[in-house]
Amino acid sequence: MDAPDAPKSPESEAKKAPDLGGVWQVLERRIVADRSPFAVIWDEDLLLPDGSTITNFIRVDIVPFAIVFAQLEDGRVPFVRQYRQAIGRVSLELPAGHIEKGEEPLGCAKRELLEEAGAVSDDWQFLGRYVLEANRGCGNAHLFLARHARLVAAPNPGDVGDMALDFLTLDEVRARLFDGSFEIAPSAMTASLALHLLG
Amino acid sequence: MDAPDAPKSPESEAKKAPDLGGVWQVLERRIVADRSPFAVIWDEDLLLPDGSTITNFIRVDIVPFAIVFAQLEDGRVPFVRQYRQAIGRVSLELPAGHIEKGEEPLGCAKRELLEEAGAVSDDWQFLGRYVLEANRGCGNAHLFLARHARLVAAPNPGDVGDMALDFLTLDEVRARLFDGSFEIAPSAMTASLALHLLG
Repeated sequence: MDAPDAPKSPESEAKKAPDLGGVWQVLERRIVADRSPFAVIWDEDLLLPDGSTITNFIRVDIVPFAIVFAQLEDGRVPFVRQYRQAIGRVSLELPAGHIEKGEEPLGCAKRELLEEAGAVSDDWQFLGRYVLEANRGCGNAHLFLARHARLVAAPNPGDVGDMALDFLTLDEVRARLFDGSFEIAPSAMTASLALHLLG
Repeated sequence: MDAPDAPKSPESEAKKAPDLGGVWQVLERRIVADRSPFAVIWDEDLLLPDGSTITNFIRVDIVPFAIVFAQLEDGRVPFVRQYRQAIGRVSLELPAGHIEKGEEPLGCAKRELLEEAGAVSDDWQFLGRYVLEANRGCGNAHLFLARHARLVAAPNPGDVGDMALDFLTLDEVRARLFDGSFEIAPSAMTASLALHLLG
């Protein structure tokens, strides 16, 4: 990390305009729990631009994932239902999965769409990369839109737990965005962004 | 947690239809790091409906927060720029903050809009509650839309680090949703959902 030295007291005491430029320097980081390849938890000791320090600022590194809003030729969009420990019940989500070592995010998106929904597409659009939590991190989501997708195989997710496949029209997706059907952020976010482009 | 006993082997061996109904029973949970009030990290040992077990499944409890897309009478939307450790640079985000003990999510949203943007509104709409990460949790975001907001005070966020205020038109927000300006999921998600209702 290319952290500059923290500014000395004259600047930090004056404090007229917001100093948004300086990074928070990591003085030391310690592993709290290593649950590779899924997650690594760190404690970081930080030096802020105003000279103040924070100790044991928890950072949560989670394996990045790709997530796909795929519209089939008939207009419908494949969703998966699976049990999710974060909410303790079955969740309605878009096909998604961990990016493997050496894999490109787009390659992961194509693989997950095929594995979880049995679908392929030749028309892909990247919708952005987002870190889930502003302070802790909690992993990066790589969002994709696939147009003109085709069902070519039976789903074969091979994940922990079982999974069921649903197909929703764009109108159904739009309604579910505002009726509480989606409980996990990345799926709702990807669906919402995709609808701006397809609506 | 009201977890039923896990089904015995005949069901799990047959495995015809996806068994999406059974919860994952928490056999034991251990605190890995207690950084209250910000975050608590747990290891959970889980028993799945098919009888398999998972040990040391990391759970990340982060304090819930409210986030606000507020449209002023002149059509503009207040955003904040602040340094975020998760990305190591300044981020463009909507006003947001932790829900305090005993506080309602809407009360928090109103407080944060006033503190961070100096704005108030009498026209609030709840856009949903979302857990950030499907496996680990990583906290709940409570999303709000405030229409007809009014600037009534100078911002006074009182947070760690400094903050600058930006005002964007709906067209500017829409463009930034797809140009990489937003790097943190909850702000992009809330803006995207709000635009479906205001667009």
